[in-house]
Amino acid sequence: MSSATSSTSTAPLSDLPPICRALFEAKAASGLTFEQIGKAMGRGEVWVASVFYGQAKPTPSDLKSLALALQAYDPNSNIDHASLMEQLGENWYPVRGLGPMPPTDPVLYRLYEGLLVYGYPIKAIIHEKFGDGIMSMINCKVNVEKKPDPEGDRVVLTFDGKFLPYSKW
Amino acid sequence: MSSATSSTSTAPLSDLPPICRALFEAKAASGLTFEQIGKAMGRGEVWVASVFYGQAKPTPSDLKSLALALQAYDPNSNIDHASLMEQLGENWYPVRGLGPMPPTDPVLYRLYEGLLVYGYPIKAIIHEKFGDGIMSMINCKVNVEKKPDPEGDRVVLTFDGKFLPYSKW
Amino acid sequence: MSSATSSTSTAPLSDLPPICRALFEAKAASGLTFEQIGKAMGRGEVWVASVFYGQAKPTPSDLKSLALALQAYDPNSNIDHASLMEQLGENWYPVRGLGPMPPTDPVLYRLYEGLLVYGYPIKAIIHEKFGDGIMSMINCKVNVEKKPDPEGDRVVLTFDGKFLPYSKW
Amino acid sequence: MSSATSSTSTAPLSDLPPICRALFEAKAASGLTFEQIGKAMGRGEVWVASVFYGQAKPTPSDLKSLALALQAYDPNSNIDHASLMEQLGENWYPVRGLGPMPPTDPVLYRLYEGLLVYGYPIKAIIHEKFGDGIMSMINCKVNVEKKPDPEGDRVVLTFDGKFLPYSKW
Amino acid sequence: MSSATSSTSTAPLSDLPPICRALFEAKAASGLTFEQIGKAMGRGEVWVASVFYGQAKPTPSDLKSLALALQAYDPNSNIDHASLMEQLGENWYPVRGLGPMPPTDPVLYRLYEGLLVYGYPIKAIIHEKFGDGIMSMINCKVNVEKKPDPEGDRVVLTFDGKFLPYSKW
Amino acid sequence: MSSATSSTSTAPLSDLPPICRALFEAKAASGLTFEQIGKAMGRGEVWVASVFYGQAKPTPSDLKSLALALQAYDPNSNIDHASLMEQLGENWYPVRGLGPMPPTDPVLYRLYEGLLVYGYPIKAIIHEKFGDGIMSMINCKVNVEKKPDPEGDRVVLTFDGKFLPYSKW
Amino acid sequence: MSSATSSTSTAPLSDLPPICRALFEAKAASGLTFEQIGKAMGRGEVWVASVFYGQAKPTPSDLKSLALALQAYDPNSNIDHASLMEQLGENWYPVRGLGPMPPTDPVLYRLYEGLLVYGYPIKAIIHEKFGDGIMSMINCKVNVEKKPDPEGDRVVLTFDGKFLPYSKW
Amino acid sequence: MSSATSSTSTAPLSDLPPICRALFEAKAASGLTFEQIGKAMGRGEVWVASVFYGQAKPTPSDLKSLALALQAYDPNSNIDHASLMEQLGENWYPVRGLGPMPPTDPVLYRLYEGLLVYGYPIKAIIHEKFGDGIMSMINCKVNVEKKPDPEGDRVVLTFDGKFLPYSKW
Amino acid sequence: MSSATSSTSTAPLSDLPPICRALFEAKAASGLTFEQIGKAMGRGEVWVASVFYGQAKPTPSDLKSLALALQAYDPNSNIDHASLMEQLGENWYPVRGLGPMPPTDPVLYRLYEGLLVYGYPIKAIIHEKFGDGIMSMINCKVNVEKKPDPEGDRVVLTFDGKFLPYSKW
Amino acid sequence: MSSATSSTSTAPLSDLPPICRALFEAKAASGLTFEQIGKAMGRGEVWVASVFYGQAKPTPSDLKSLALALQAYDPNSNIDHASLMEQLGENWYPVRGLGPMPPTDPVLYRLYEGLLVYGYPIKAIIHEKFGDGIMSMINCKVNVEKKPDPEGDRVVLTFDGKFLPYSKW
Repeated sequence: MSSATSSTSTAPLSDLPPICRALFEAKAASGLTFEQIGKAMGRGEVWVASVFYGQAKPTPSDLKSLALALQAYDPNSNIDHASLMEQLGENWYPVRGLGPMPPTDPVLYRLYEGLLVYGYPIKAIIHEKFGDGIMSMINCKVNVEKKPDPEGDRVVLTFDGKFLPYSKW
Repeated sequence: MSSATSSTSTAPLSDLPPICRALFEAKAASGLTFEQIGKAMGRGEVWVASVFYGQAKPTPSDLKSLALALQAYDPNSNIDHASLMEQLGENWYPVRGLGPMPPTDPVLYRLYEGLLVYGYPIKAIIHEKFGDGIMSMINCKVNVEKKPDPEGDRVVLTFDGKFLPYSKW
Repeated sequence: MSSATSSTSTAPLSDLPPICRALFEAKAASGLTFEQIGKAMGRGEVWVASVFYGQAKPTPSDLKSLALALQAYDPNSNIDHASLMEQLGENWYPVRGLGPMPPTDPVLYRLYEGLLVYGYPIKAIIHEKFGDGIMSMINCKVNVEKKPDPEGDRVVLTFDGKFLPYSKW
Repeated sequence: MSSATSSTSTAPLSDLPPICRALFEAKAASGLTFEQIGKAMGRGEVWVASVFYGQAKPTPSDLKSLALALQAYDPNSNIDHASLMEQLGENWYPVRGLGPMPPTDPVLYRLYEGLLVYGYPIKAIIHEKFGDGIMSMINCKVNVEKKPDPEGDRVVLTFDGKFLPYSKW
Repeated sequence: MSSATSSTSTAPLSDLPPICRALFEAKAASGLTFEQIGKAMGRGEVWVASVFYGQAKPTPSDLKSLALALQAYDPNSNIDHASLMEQLGENWYPVRGLGPMPPTDPVLYRLYEGLLVYGYPIKAIIHEKFGDGIMSMINCKVNVEKKPDPEGDRVVLTFDGKFLPYSKW
Repeated sequence: MSSATSSTSTAPLSDLPPICRALFEAKAASGLTFEQIGKAMGRGEVWVASVFYGQAKPTPSDLKSLALALQAYDPNSNIDHASLMEQLGENWYPVRGLGPMPPTDPVLYRLYEGLLVYGYPIKAIIHEKFGDGIMSMINCKVNVEKKPDPEGDRVVLTFDGKFLPYSKW
Repeated sequence: MSSATSSTSTAPLSDLPPICRALFEAKAASGLTFEQIGKAMGRGEVWVASVFYGQAKPTPSDLKSLALALQAYDPNSNIDHASLMEQLGENWYPVRGLGPMPPTDPVLYRLYEGLLVYGYPIKAIIHEKFGDGIMSMINCKVNVEKKPDPEGDRVVLTFDGKFLPYSKW
Repeated sequence: MSSATSSTSTAPLSDLPPICRALFEAKAASGLTFEQIGKAMGRGEVWVASVFYGQAKPTPSDLKSLALALQAYDPNSNIDHASLMEQLGENWYPVRGLGPMPPTDPVLYRLYEGLLVYGYPIKAIIHEKFGDGIMSMINCKVNVEKKPDPEGDRVVLTFDGKFLPYSKW
Repeated sequence: MSSATSSTSTAPLSDLPPICRALFEAKAASGLTFEQIGKAMGRGEVWVASVFYGQAKPTPSDLKSLALALQAYDPNSNIDHASLMEQLGENWYPVRGLGPMPPTDPVLYRLYEGLLVYGYPIKAIIHEKFGDGIMSMINCKVNVEKKPDPEGDRVVLTFDGKFLPYSKW
Repeated sequence: MSSATSSTSTAPLSDLPPICRALFEAKAASGLTFEQIGKAMGRGEVWVASVFYGQAKPTPSDLKSLALALQAYDPNSNIDHASLMEQLGENWYPVRGLGPMPPTDPVLYRLYEGLLVYGYPIKAIIHEKFGDGIMSMINCKVNVEKKPDPEGDRVVLTFDGKFLPYSKW
């Protein structure tokens, strides 16, 4: 009794390696959430979603736990460790960056607008608190939480990145 | 014995109303941080910086407490409540959005890169946790914290925005 | 005696999931209008058209009534509830935003021109009547009416969106 | 006892003829709203705001009633009929179109997003109801109303434009 | 003894519905000119070419006379009234606008250059002769004539469009 | 009793040499139309407007007749032959091309739309009637006529340009 | 014993009609240079290359001599006069303009840079020597010569175009 | 009895150092052509024009001969060797690249079109004659000649650049 | 026991000739690094990678040593000298330039940012040390080294390019 | 006996704070090179040039040694420690990123071309040697050396940046 989506023929999924589209279809078939997969893998759900979107590089161990998680819920899954290793393993590195800019999707655009409106204030506070440098987006953890609120639940999106001071020479 | 900066002649400050540049100069003269001004005003520091960058609309009461905070540290300050009211008061509304896109400054670019790399994963998690809708950037609080870490301090940037479900009709 | 269009091979339909193109073809075969489908579904016609263009997320109940409406007029329709659920159901979320900008099509361009010419005046009136904030495009109903007029019928296009005041913190 | 804003040194006002900036300052000094000025002139408020933004061409009679309205509230106003005639009269035609695209300001962006998301559905409904043609943005009235709502007031934005069928030859 | 072109695999023909490409191939096979087809249909040749390029919406009667014209010269033509009705009939509306801008093709670029160089002068003359308004491109006839000239034949390109005065409200 | 416009401080006039702005002011003061000036100079009105917009290079004789025409109606005009010769004479050549593209002004945009919609059809007809080549925009006359029509006056815009066949070598 | 290249699947060849790609493959198989083909056709080599890239329109006679030249060296060539006539003959006109701008390929970019650096000086010298007008790119011959030089051979690229004076009217 | 142009307030001259504008004014006052100045300096006229446009770096000896040439024709010239040395001497290096791209001016656009149409053919011939490499735009001489022709004089534009083979390592 | 990656269906590999994708797959199957292949060929590893990405032109001898290196590790490899010669040999020249700009991938973006931040300083130092001219990117060797460092290994990226002085004429 | 350049009125210097322009003028007046200033400050010359271009943040101690270096060679210099502290001190942070992209200047463009051509190969080698991560442009030293070579001196440009592995979470 399958309920797999096949809308992987449109952007951004159509811009990804075939294995990524297969992952989305396997996830749909399994009925699992990213949160559930993340827990099974011992990883954060945003990071796991990044793997699905081809934006992060999993270790062989990640690929193993991912295959296990999917197979546990769908024994017929054609996603096994070997095929993941072949396509997202040693010889694969993400070419990061997805979608048009400015984003046309409203969910993504709001983050872009956050940068347009609050970018310079954020920069000013970082400089005031840390000095000349940046918040790393390489050594950075991204988190999305649901905060219940009687006036409407809230999304709490956190970037937790290492401060990198500018080197002089 | 002044130490005011006069680098307000370059972008983005040169794109702001003169009162904004005057605010930056008064802040520099006072030696106050945004955190200190924010505490004196009972406002968050990122929001206060947004006022300085012409990206938020303060209430008359905000303008009063802002003038008081600056004058407390620099009695010679030419920033008084009346001039703030005249230029950032009832008749003034922000035209929001500042700076070039993609941003050329590395601090700002890292946020842009966060959207390029983690945008679709964030969207996927929001949909999984909340359904069809967006995180509001209008009803949203932005926060920057310094988290000490032996391997290098970390910047924790938080967007806390109301979830808005798509209406149907 | 079919009269289905097959011009779904060009933009913007070619950018949509296959199910959307199938919907357009089923609608053409049925001879139904969006208004008729909307009435059968208890939904507004612009919203129904948004579903066809992959820009809105229908509920399972919407998909049921949509399938029923199409099948009522074309028993041979290959659009049934199950296929709609599989492709526009739980695992599918719209990636919104369609077509090039500025739009090249004159119908769409006129709306763009409306923003170019009347955008700032509209913003000024919103601020004057509501204060600092925006008209939501998430909690918003869009309507197109035909208003007979002896000098030429008129299109009355309405956006009815919730006012969202800017939060402070 | 002045309360005039002087923030006319930034965009979009800095892109307008000096007379437009003078109009905004006179309006601020008078304390009048666009609605009040519009009523005094017998014109819609969005249209009046368009004149202030240099996006509409007033008649000599409009300029007369505009000068009268402003002077009635501020006898010291330097906006008189003669200066309006000299600068917005016979020899002046608007060069329409204001501000960057895509808009960076959230109020304006939401309208742009409305076009991105609902543009093709609107086009489809117009064709279904009227045939091949467009909604004129030249012969079009734009209106902004405040609709009280217990769950939050709503902005009702209306474009009422003549349908123009495509000519054949 | 066919001589049909098959270069319909490149832009702009590759961006058009398959029926349009079929029309170009049928025209090539028939040896007819747009002028000849136009006369057979009782339509202007530029308008007929617009139909071929998917930029105009023909009536059922236009489609009938078009099919007849093509079949008269090529009885083996697979372009019949039924297939035209199915693909360019009731359910089809043009998504207008074709090709990159600025145009790279020199024939098209010259028109673009005409706008760059003579656009403001044309606007000035229109305002001087008609007042505030535009030349409609919806209610407009476009014509291309060959004018013999001993120093080299001349192209006479005419846009004959209705003047639309700006409405006030 | 002056009625000169001073709105030459905004685009596109602000992008032109000062002498061009002076010409517009002198024309406004004189009350002359381009048609009247053109007749006095023995030149077409669109071409004369092109000189005002800095898009055409007048001969010394053109400058003489232009100065005479303006002075005849305004003896106090500071536009004399010498100042025109100094600034638009031998050492001056137009840097042609004015205004943003795509144009934001609706009058100009309609011409742009004409190219988007009818560009390829026009190209096809030119090739059909003349062969491989272009309509020159250098050796081209541009004309704007008012054609009375009971259903609304019409603008007749004509480009009369030499056909240039592509050379082979 | 073929040695034909099949790299015609990438830009810019992938943007050309199939016949163009076939021509490149036939040329590769034949081992002929553009210079040799040009001599056999009595045409310049740059012009012949332009035909291969779909940027020039050959006469039927050109197509005949082209087919002969290719067949002389490769009797098995599937490029014959009939297929060239069918695809590059009467019904085909170039849509000129190839590749992205600014060009990313260094050979092409250097020409672009020549325009960036020497464009205005070239314009100034043309005006000084010829007056107001342009060098035609339609009536223009392009030539590439190899000039031996002990310090390194030199490329001599020549554009020989008719001067076209601007018309007045 | 001066005849100096003052149109240096518009682009591209307004983007150049003040000394460049002074050079153009001095040249206009002197009545000299670039060809005459070039001969006096022992330099090519296009190169001399490049110095005027701030696109080439003259030697101290070039500046001396340039000052002498201008002063010989206008003893009152304020262009002397010392001021040239101060502003275009040791401490000055060109920031090359002038004007918008694509160029809007027709003279410049034709060169751009030459690249659009003949760029790949030129690249193909360079590779065929020289192998893998480029024509240098650094070690390159640019020349503009007038070639009389009974059917209309011709502009002969030549780029004579060193071939640079790609290094391997 | 294959471990070949098949992610060559996405950018930038999808923009390359099929032989390039085959090379990447053969390399993955062989388990060789670019460094190892480079050593076997007597070439630098960055240059070898450039060949794989279609950005450099190998000699026949390079192709021979490349085929040998791959076959030595995978006798079943379908990459032999003949197929390389056919597709990357005499008739093939790189169309250089790969990927979007600004780059979205963080590894590539950092180099772009290096240019944004240090570009003018680098230019200033080159001029100070060498005079007016450029560092050639044609006669240039690119090298990537790993420099161990207790605080974290460092990437040392070197461009070693010939200085080319600007020619005068 | 001054020889100061005043060409600081054009880009990119015109985009910098006034103190930066003053620094360039002081350097020109002193006759010092960046190398000499760097040695006097104990800093690398590219970094020192970055301070002049407003792209790096100096410490108070850097500003002291900079002022001393300039004053040692020009006692009349108006660049003293106090003015540097006021304008480039505690309250000033660089807004990094300078100049248009793609760069029009050939020196800068060659670096951009290096990224276009060798970007993916560099990325591939970094991944092969270091794994998934980037070369930091924050913790990075940039160096320009002159390497004498009998066939023409060479520029050796080095980026020495810390490798940053991607974090997982």
